[in-house]
Amino acid sequence: MRTIRVTVWNEYIHEKDPRIAKIYPDGIHGAIASMLGREEDFEIRTATLDMPEHGLTDDVLNTTDVLIWWGHLAHAKVSDEVAEKVRQRVLAGMGLIVLHSGHLSKPFVKLMGTICRSKWRENDELERIWVIEPGHPIAEGLPEYIELPKEETYGERFDIPKPDDLVFISWFSGGEVFRSGCCYNRGNGKVFYFRPGHEEYPTFYREDITRILANAVRWACPRMITPPTFGHYEAIEHVKDKFEGRSMEERTHATLGKT
Amino acid sequence: MRTIRVTVWNEYIHEKDPRIAKIYPDGIHGAIASMLGREEDFEIRTATLDMPEHGLTDDVLNTTDVLIWWGHLAHAKVSDEVAEKVRQRVLAGMGLIVLHSGHLSKPFVKLMGTICRSKWRENDELERIWVIEPGHPIAEGLPEYIELPKEETYGERFDIPKPDDLVFISWFSGGEVFRSGCCYNRGNGKVFYFRPGHEEYPTFYREDITRILANAVRWACPRMITPPTFGHYEAIEHVKDKFEGRSMEERTHATLGKT
Amino acid sequence: MRTIRVTVWNEYIHEKDPRIAKIYPDGIHGAIASMLGREEDFEIRTATLDMPEHGLTDDVLNTTDVLIWWGHLAHAKVSDEVAEKVRQRVLAGMGLIVLHSGHLSKPFVKLMGTICRSKWRENDELERIWVIEPGHPIAEGLPEYIELPKEETYGERFDIPKPDDLVFISWFSGGEVFRSGCCYNRGNGKVFYFRPGHEEYPTFYREDITRILANAVRWACPRMITPPTFGHYEAIEHVKDKFEGRSMEERTHATLGKT
Amino acid sequence: MRTIRVTVWNEYIHEKDPRIAKIYPDGIHGAIASMLGREEDFEIRTATLDMPEHGLTDDVLNTTDVLIWWGHLAHAKVSDEVAEKVRQRVLAGMGLIVLHSGHLSKPFVKLMGTICRSKWRENDELERIWVIEPGHPIAEGLPEYIELPKEETYGERFDIPKPDDLVFISWFSGGEVFRSGCCYNRGNGKVFYFRPGHEEYPTFYREDITRILANAVRWACPRMITPPTFGHYEAIEHVKDKFEGRSMEERTHATLGKT
Repeated sequence: MRTIRVTVWNEYIHEKDPRIAKIYPDGIHGAIASMLGREEDFEIRTATLDMPEHGLTDDVLNTTDVLIWWGHLAHAKVSDEVAEKVRQRVLAGMGLIVLHSGHLSKPFVKLMGTICRSKWRENDELERIWVIEPGHPIAEGLPEYIELPKEETYGERFDIPKPDDLVFISWFSGGEVFRSGCCYNRGNGKVFYFRPGHEEYPTFYREDITRILANAVRWACPRMITPPTFGHYEAIEHVKDKFEGRSMEERTHATLGKT
Repeated sequence: MRTIRVTVWNEYIHEKDPRIAKIYPDGIHGAIASMLGREEDFEIRTATLDMPEHGLTDDVLNTTDVLIWWGHLAHAKVSDEVAEKVRQRVLAGMGLIVLHSGHLSKPFVKLMGTICRSKWRENDELERIWVIEPGHPIAEGLPEYIELPKEETYGERFDIPKPDDLVFISWFSGGEVFRSGCCYNRGNGKVFYFRPGHEEYPTFYREDITRILANAVRWACPRMITPPTFGHYEAIEHVKDKFEGRSMEERTHATLGKT
Repeated sequence: MRTIRVTVWNEYIHEKDPRIAKIYPDGIHGAIASMLGREEDFEIRTATLDMPEHGLTDDVLNTTDVLIWWGHLAHAKVSDEVAEKVRQRVLAGMGLIVLHSGHLSKPFVKLMGTICRSKWRENDELERIWVIEPGHPIAEGLPEYIELPKEETYGERFDIPKPDDLVFISWFSGGEVFRSGCCYNRGNGKVFYFRPGHEEYPTFYREDITRILANAVRWACPRMITPPTFGHYEAIEHVKDKFEGRSMEERTHATLGKT
Repeated sequence: MRTIRVTVWNEYIHEKDPRIAKIYPDGIHGAIASMLGREEDFEIRTATLDMPEHGLTDDVLNTTDVLIWWGHLAHAKVSDEVAEKVRQRVLAGMGLIVLHSGHLSKPFVKLMGTICRSKWRENDELERIWVIEPGHPIAEGLPEYIELPKEETYGERFDIPKPDDLVFISWFSGGEVFRSGCCYNRGNGKVFYFRPGHEEYPTFYREDITRILANAVRWACPRMITPPTFGHYEAIEHVKDKFEGRSMEERTHATLGKT
């Protein structure tokens, strides 16, 4: 079984407030790392805003298969350089899972190109997350919907590009809908946006939420890719003579040799 | 490692002609089964048109994870009943890989809803299959393109629904392009259309083509799904009395006034 | 201004019940025809199940730019021949707007390839239809959402192919979401599925619903198309000599002459 | 008839070379403005890099419905401020048509989020642009393909997000394919990328190319939009007390038990 190297990044600010620390004593990143750590093929590290380079040094990024991102208060404090490095790593093949208020984080906004804003409300409302594509790998093992008894509400218009796959749509008791599970291919990499995870609720301790995150990690994990080449490129040589004077066997042999 | 049960279906007519039998002495299905049989997690059977129920009995279909389909001359000879069963099995979750001229087969046309026709020409032309989405699971392990030194030419307009993922585009030396690797989600299942595979060329003995088919089998393999329920469905309990005591006129008036 | 020829088809069964006739005395088709008839560029006819060939003779279909379809009780009574003609006309370029329970009609199911079922409930619930793509032509002139004070509830999983454009998502007070405005390109034609319109509510008299239908008619209206050719097709002649001995002007002239 | 206000932007550098000036004596922008100027509903201005604010002042941008962009040598000389203003205007609803080497311009790259690079070659090759979606508004009035006798060659992998609509695919005589007509919805606006238009060929004088650009202008033209609101948003009034009197533990327990 292949080991998948996961780095969980968190700005880690809310959880220093005692009220939030009761819910997430080890931070949101700690809770996610602990829950995902039960998957035997995951190797998990964490990184936070206050570490040098926010914990996302070249060495860390270059040995990360999938990066999970939670941020809210301090998007502006993430350095442009680190945000751009994350974007470049995704385009080179790394998976990126953006949680909840991370929709306004620098790496996500840069990768989407749009403003990524939405409606919101903190009102302890019921969220029902409906599975729209039951055959999608990220929906594997889920029931038809999951219910979060209290969550922050987000509402459409969510200003994102049309997802390549729309896996979940959320219903909120206060009257909103939200595209809450959105898959994107960007460059050689994959991005999954997942809506829930307000710091005031124990969302990341749930089995169903953990299942979704584990599915998303496996979906986003880089595969064996031949990086595309860009720039100047030669035409087929001697196109016009290509088939002259060669038998089918010769041609097939030549081609098989090449690939 | 999970075993994936693959059934390779072939109409098996061309290969009874000695000219074609030289290339595919065990039939196209035999060649594909032999090449894919080297994957240790695949369990492979074959089925052909002339078998009872074309070899696709309920028992076979119900124990097939992924069905591979090659047909050309005898689309009309496939019974409507079997074609409909294949469609229903895909909608219930089975993977379906449709090869080459199978784009006009009954199961594929029924699942697409369009006429699925294209341009074509038998002219021994060079086909270059370009990888458009290098991060897609079906492109795993491939170079930037593969070359088939001689293949039948297909050309756009290919009258299909827009693919959910477009993995490959083919270039032909005679002037055509073709969307040659097309992924669809249909119901709980997945469909992959792959263009090459004319009976006069040894395409299915190639390592790169085999790699694509093996990738496609793993991509299309059904996952652990909660089958959606359809039909009558109860509301959340506390909702039912929400609007009582207001007439339809009041409600309509209020709403029209607002919008 | 170009005239758009619209045919509104209705099975016209429910409205013969006095309870429903109070709401739609001229039938649902009559209400839609009357509301859309105020658009000066629309030329509107109606057709119903009990007419010969269900009112969809070759002559009618061949002079229809956009067909609107409402059906519920009598899907099975629509002849296979007429359903197939409608499908063929869409693939040739006609627009098709399928309303509400028409998601299980023969023409829609044939064009989609899936089973097209959903959850449902008659419970007088509030429906909020949220605009997901405000820049889409079908959303033109709408507010952020519209509210239908009472409608039949439909719920996901709605078993359809992924829409080419998803314009609306509905929220229902009983806990469901629904992809309620779905665009598809099929063949040369366009299909729009729009969820509301239960026979017990005066939905089709609303200004906002009428606006959506009028927008959809204009979006689905066939354009000036060169029908693709299918079948055998010649390669570029003398590809290898194409550029020899001709000046750029000659080449450009030749090409402009051709197109 | 509504007037569409089009601004054609060009870096206008190549055409100061006498060799290129022979082909485009009034600049590429001049040629495009002249050809599109024959459409009676278009009101056309031009703007170039060397003008103050590159000719794209707030006043110009705020009165532009569709901006056409050609650039190549001087992408880096476009100020970040102007590039960001263009992006914001697109997200607010303006149409943007990006031509040829403009795929590496700042506004396009910012809106896409990816690196947007491709293969290329200057080799006087034949380009065939195939219509993939004949029913798309941008393909209106075109034949099945158009041929440009000599163009610069671009080749896949073209590192862009999956287009919302893929209208054209190009074939090049040297062996490449290219997604050459790509539609995107971004924010409230629309973006169309169109591949041809190397400065050494008289591509922008062609009737067919002009037809495509005119179609794209009409497709991208902003419609009557209700700008979405973002930020804090009230719930439906009657909902707010729904869950009162239950502890978070009760709610969470109930939900976890269910899923």
